[in-house]
Amino acid sequence: MLKVEILSVGTELLMGQIANTNAQYLSSKLPEIGLGVYYHSVVGDNPGRLRESLALALERADVIITTGGLGPTQDDLTKDTIAGALGLSMTIHEESYQRIKDYFEKNGKILVESNYRQACFPEGSIVLENGLGTAPGCAIETKYNGLDKIIIMLPGPPRELIPMYEKGVIPYLQGKSHCHIQSKFLRIAGVSESRVEEMILEFVNGQTNPTFATYAKDGIVTIRISANDENGAKAADLIEADVQKFRNIFGSKLYTTENEEIEEAFVRVMKEKSLTFASAESCTGGLIAQRITSVSGASAVFTSAFVTYSNTAKEKMLNVPHEMIETYGAVSRETALAMIQNAAKICGADVVVSVTGCAGPEGMEGKPVGLVYIGVKYKESEKVHELFFTGNRDKIRTLASTTALFLALEEIRKGEK
Amino acid sequence: MLKVEILSVGTELLMGQIANTNAQYLSSKLPEIGLGVYYHSVVGDNPGRLRESLALALERADVIITTGGLGPTQDDLTKDTIAGALGLSMTIHEESYQRIKDYFEKNGKILVESNYRQACFPEGSIVLENGLGTAPGCAIETKYNGLDKIIIMLPGPPRELIPMYEKGVIPYLQGKSHCHIQSKFLRIAGVSESRVEEMILEFVNGQTNPTFATYAKDGIVTIRISANDENGAKAADLIEADVQKFRNIFGSKLYTTENEEIEEAFVRVMKEKSLTFASAESCTGGLIAQRITSVSGASAVFTSAFVTYSNTAKEKMLNVPHEMIETYGAVSRETALAMIQNAAKICGADVVVSVTGCAGPEGMEGKPVGLVYIGVKYKESEKVHELFFTGNRDKIRTLASTTALFLALEEIRKGEK
Repeated sequence: MLKVEILSVGTELLMGQIANTNAQYLSSKLPEIGLGVYYHSVVGDNPGRLRESLALALERADVIITTGGLGPTQDDLTKDTIAGALGLSMTIHEESYQRIKDYFEKNGKILVESNYRQACFPEGSIVLENGLGTAPGCAIETKYNGLDKIIIMLPGPPRELIPMYEKGVIPYLQGKSHCHIQSKFLRIAGVSESRVEEMILEFVNGQTNPTFATYAKDGIVTIRISANDENGAKAADLIEADVQKFRNIFGSKLYTTENEEIEEAFVRVMKEKSLTFASAESCTGGLIAQRITSVSGASAVFTSAFVTYSNTAKEKMLNVPHEMIETYGAVSRETALAMIQNAAKICGADVVVSVTGCAGPEGMEGKPVGLVYIGVKYKESEKVHELFFTGNRDKIRTLASTTALFLALEEIRKGEK
Repeated sequence: MLKVEILSVGTELLMGQIANTNAQYLSSKLPEIGLGVYYHSVVGDNPGRLRESLALALERADVIITTGGLGPTQDDLTKDTIAGALGLSMTIHEESYQRIKDYFEKNGKILVESNYRQACFPEGSIVLENGLGTAPGCAIETKYNGLDKIIIMLPGPPRELIPMYEKGVIPYLQGKSHCHIQSKFLRIAGVSESRVEEMILEFVNGQTNPTFATYAKDGIVTIRISANDENGAKAADLIEADVQKFRNIFGSKLYTTENEEIEEAFVRVMKEKSLTFASAESCTGGLIAQRITSVSGASAVFTSAFVTYSNTAKEKMLNVPHEMIETYGAVSRETALAMIQNAAKICGADVVVSVTGCAGPEGMEGKPVGLVYIGVKYKESEKVHELFFTGNRDKIRTLASTTALFLALEEIRKGEK
């Protein structure tokens, strides 16, 4: 397995202005194509320290992926420094220069000398096109102490790095890595990570192809199944057989086998079934609506949200009776039920969820932080779930919104084969 | 200035399961007490690679801060490995052992052998108490090639690391660093980063105390002013004098001198003025409501949001006339105005903002992606702003929500001294 070091260049990382999400992204993706990440390192926009770190990385890794420092300014020194360290001259890449010129003309901007630098690469580079910005990336193959090394330089902005990785780096590295791995991601909600591990333990123990990894975040457990084409077996077939077994183990808790967030799965399934959706939110404060509308194409599904944070808003916008709130409280099964019923009446959506609870930091109405009622209405079915989440305010809101989407998804899929 | 390397230990970082937010946090905080971060590095739970990285860090930094690997399991090897590398034996710290025992008794858990390890430290360590978990941290002072070095070991979970840094590491390092730096953060909205730099250029050029740094994210430019007590000058006074000059330069665009997000500033100011708030959102899909309600204590200010994504929802929930949408479109000055007017009527909030625009990926009603109308109503004043944002869907939504909050804040502060 090829060893990778991710070498990030940027003073903004050392100042703590941004987290190194590029290293995280690349680290999560590289194992899917059979490469293992052994080191991350970060240096500032300083040629001397970059040169030292590069030397170290060449010593200990087979593939070095740099991020950042490809922009037009003087700070952006990655290509020049690496070319210098390897004794390579910089040469113009005409196609890239033309593309940068076109980009500037199209956007009515004036091309300056420094943009010319963006089209220059260490001689012998394989240029990786940038679909979004002006800074292309590149890959260089070199020898170090008689061993083959690859250096790949990617831009710093994630919205440029990610498509370049997907379109340029994956096909390039797959040709280099002699290990052809395929992966599939199963997502499970409503089951804790330790329980998931228990449930699959017997099944995964001692397996070497496919292999399994689980991780949990914000109430969702992801199982990664990775297989390679060994001894005549087909990775895809090996994975498919296991997916089927996991479906039997987890039933409707396994809500997707695509590598997608729950809001993406939700919008996709709602679209497939031509259903419309609305939310009535108190403690989540619009988070469900925000997550759904973050999915491109949500407008086919999502009609509206009633964010009724105050009790008066619950009465005025959703006609929750004043006496009901007086008697049972805003955080109650009764209020959650009234919220879905009345929201459905007003907006006519096919599926409505409501959330009312105590996100903290203080309890309210004598109810503890973490208590949340989630209502789900789908056709004639109206259900209210009582849940208890632990964590800080942010965590409770995230878990409540995830759970609401999951419970709604489970409901509309009932009776599906 | 003491040079710092942050050395993070954890396979979960190299697998991309989490981002290295600890390195970001420490990097943003250390300059405030006069230390400069020059390197980040990450290794897995592997003693050999940790030892190599430690040797390198001792070579190039004065202070090494490790994060992670202090837990009770076999994976958690930071203390043992570093003790081994420095030739120190491990000794029990009775006070910590007692504290761990008490913690387990209080939580009804059973103390196992491995918990004993958490109370063991390399001999000569200064123990840093863990208020939240069972793993204390520690600091070791050592010599390397005749030079003074400090190694500080902190736990991996941010909710344990952050209080340990604040309560234990700051006072310890302030005693070591002979440079006492104070910083203040000014936040500016509605002005581009390059324009901010131009506006302060003359003023900051050649200044060495205070120093200035700017950075931009999601439509907000932050200026950090850092000063130290040199030659009898007081850092706080130096900073205050400059804050006043920046206020004159940027006027109401400088919306806070606290280190706070715009939603936090907004909730704080609304509370001070005892005002209530509601939003009427189309393309932001609840993002404004979600950002406001993420602030603890938002319930004193926030009443409700009308997330009217579909045209029908705009008509039913906010009584926007059908003919208005037919004539001018949902993305129009007229609709944005009707949204604030009718939302205010229904919920009675003092301040109402509305947002309607094209977040993409496709334009609508023949209008281009990025066109956004933002309505702001405060008392008798009703204004609609036409804006144009560039970027992807996510970026346009974020910029629109930030700008809406900023425009509302500017409006309610008008006439303030």
